[in-house]
Amino acid sequence: MALDKQEIALWFQGLQDRICQQLEAFDGKATFQEDAWTREAGGGGRSRVITEGNVLEKGGVNFSAVEGPTPEKILNALKLDQADFFATGVSIVLHPSSPKVPIIHMNVRYFEMSNGIWWFGGGIDLTPIYVIEEDAKHFHQQLKAVCDKHHADYYPKFKPWADDYFYLPHRKETRGIGGIFFDRLSGNDDFTKEERWKFLQDVGELFAPLYIEIAGRHKDETFTEEEKGWQLLRRSRYVEFNLLHDKGTKFGLDTDGRTESILMSMPPLAKWEYCHTPAPNSPEEKTQSLLKKGIDFAGM
Amino acid sequence: MALDKQEIALWFQGLQDRICQQLEAFDGKATFQEDAWTREAGGGGRSRVITEGNVLEKGGVNFSAVEGPTPEKILNALKLDQADFFATGVSIVLHPSSPKVPIIHMNVRYFEMSNGIWWFGGGIDLTPIYVIEEDAKHFHQQLKAVCDKHHADYYPKFKPWADDYFYLPHRKETRGIGGIFFDRLSGNDDFTKEERWKFLQDVGELFAPLYIEIAGRHKDETFTEEEKGWQLLRRSRYVEFNLLHDKGTKFGLDTDGRTESILMSMPPLAKWEYCHTPAPNSPEEKTQSLLKKGIDFAGM
Repeated sequence: MALDKQEIALWFQGLQDRICQQLEAFDGKATFQEDAWTREAGGGGRSRVITEGNVLEKGGVNFSAVEGPTPEKILNALKLDQADFFATGVSIVLHPSSPKVPIIHMNVRYFEMSNGIWWFGGGIDLTPIYVIEEDAKHFHQQLKAVCDKHHADYYPKFKPWADDYFYLPHRKETRGIGGIFFDRLSGNDDFTKEERWKFLQDVGELFAPLYIEIAGRHKDETFTEEEKGWQLLRRSRYVEFNLLHDKGTKFGLDTDGRTESILMSMPPLAKWEYCHTPAPNSPEEKTQSLLKKGIDFAGM
Repeated sequence: MALDKQEIALWFQGLQDRICQQLEAFDGKATFQEDAWTREAGGGGRSRVITEGNVLEKGGVNFSAVEGPTPEKILNALKLDQADFFATGVSIVLHPSSPKVPIIHMNVRYFEMSNGIWWFGGGIDLTPIYVIEEDAKHFHQQLKAVCDKHHADYYPKFKPWADDYFYLPHRKETRGIGGIFFDRLSGNDDFTKEERWKFLQDVGELFAPLYIEIAGRHKDETFTEEEKGWQLLRRSRYVEFNLLHDKGTKFGLDTDGRTESILMSMPPLAKWEYCHTPAPNSPEEKTQSLLKKGIDFAGM
């Protein structure tokens, strides 16, 4: 394997830099604050958080590269004997202040173990407070284009994977309009490690321009108190997903990661209202009706 | 066993009524709204929610009695063959609007299976936004008195159990000042089922007068924007505990319970702030310093 873990980690660091620069230029007001941290059992990271910007109310763009003995929970799940692990990646969640601008998440990561096992994983998904069809179409078409460039099977596989992954079973709703999700992409007859890596790199580079395009369409729109209230409710679903289901959050907390970096994904403010139901024929009801699996946004 | 599940469930229903009456009288403005619900696989419940009261911003007092085939997850955890289960109890979380009034939680429950296994479980714990020593002392002394009435070992066992249970490992802090927690109290040489049940009943009846006493001490105090902000931050820790760790929430969601009833424990509004640290020597820092295990509040 020519491609080694340090090379991957270094590239991720560069990606973090590039994304932060693009987001700062776009926001036009706030800048990222960095906290470098180390992990007792090995490795560390650079957390970058932006708050109270023109567009971004709270956002995190995190890089980490952690290593050490693989935690028991993970070994048991994989049914493997003790081995060291190395995990590196970039993880992003952006909470804009306006309900007209969607929440977005991206993660690109690499994992390897001292027994030779390795894989890539990641995904991008969009959580609009109000689903706008033409944005949803653009978002999915861009993801599809990056997937198609690398393999015709990718988008048809990774889009439904995102539908299944970013799903709240207790709400019977998806987190947003999905996107792509993939995990344990390792080498086989069809893909070399380098090919997997190139795909991951393209996903990583797509993130900032794609979000900036969509957020830019709506950042200057006005909004009402009711629309802000609906945003706070949708954010509470985001909290539920991340704390109940998100595997990255679980992995981070299980491996004794840095809590404030892991939970930078939490919204600045969220609201829970007992049995809230959108009014019939309202924009909120329309959005709710689109929070389901299997919608072909790219082909809309 | 003279004491059967229907008798227990009926008593819990009555407890729910009594607690709601006392809380309504105390609040003086809002009243509980009831939703009766049934569960597809068997049983149902009565959710009662109070909102926008003088004291209570959002609170739930839920009764449920559910039954049916025991979910796989639970059977696997208990290493048991298929059997039916029956679970009934009252579950309460109250979120007051004022940061001077603590959040409180109580749960009392009974669980049995068709293979003859049964147990009681439950607990009460208090989450002050600002810890006041004399309230903490009173709260723990009252819990201790109810425990001591039934067995000298109860409080010394159930108080540390609450410390361990209501704990956020990723924050290295307790949820609040704890209280008592107990689970799987079944019959043995020392305790009959009736004795366990009488203890549980006393815990249930203690709840309303105990909370009303402590909340009543502070409900009319004024508070600042900063104090409200600290409350929203503390509430976010409450969310984290309930979604990451609370076994009742997990059990409810795993057994396909009614989501809105289970998540009535969520606060009306919560805030996450990256790396928030209380100012040195502030009341917030003092509270933070008391969010740890092993403090003998009753003996303060």
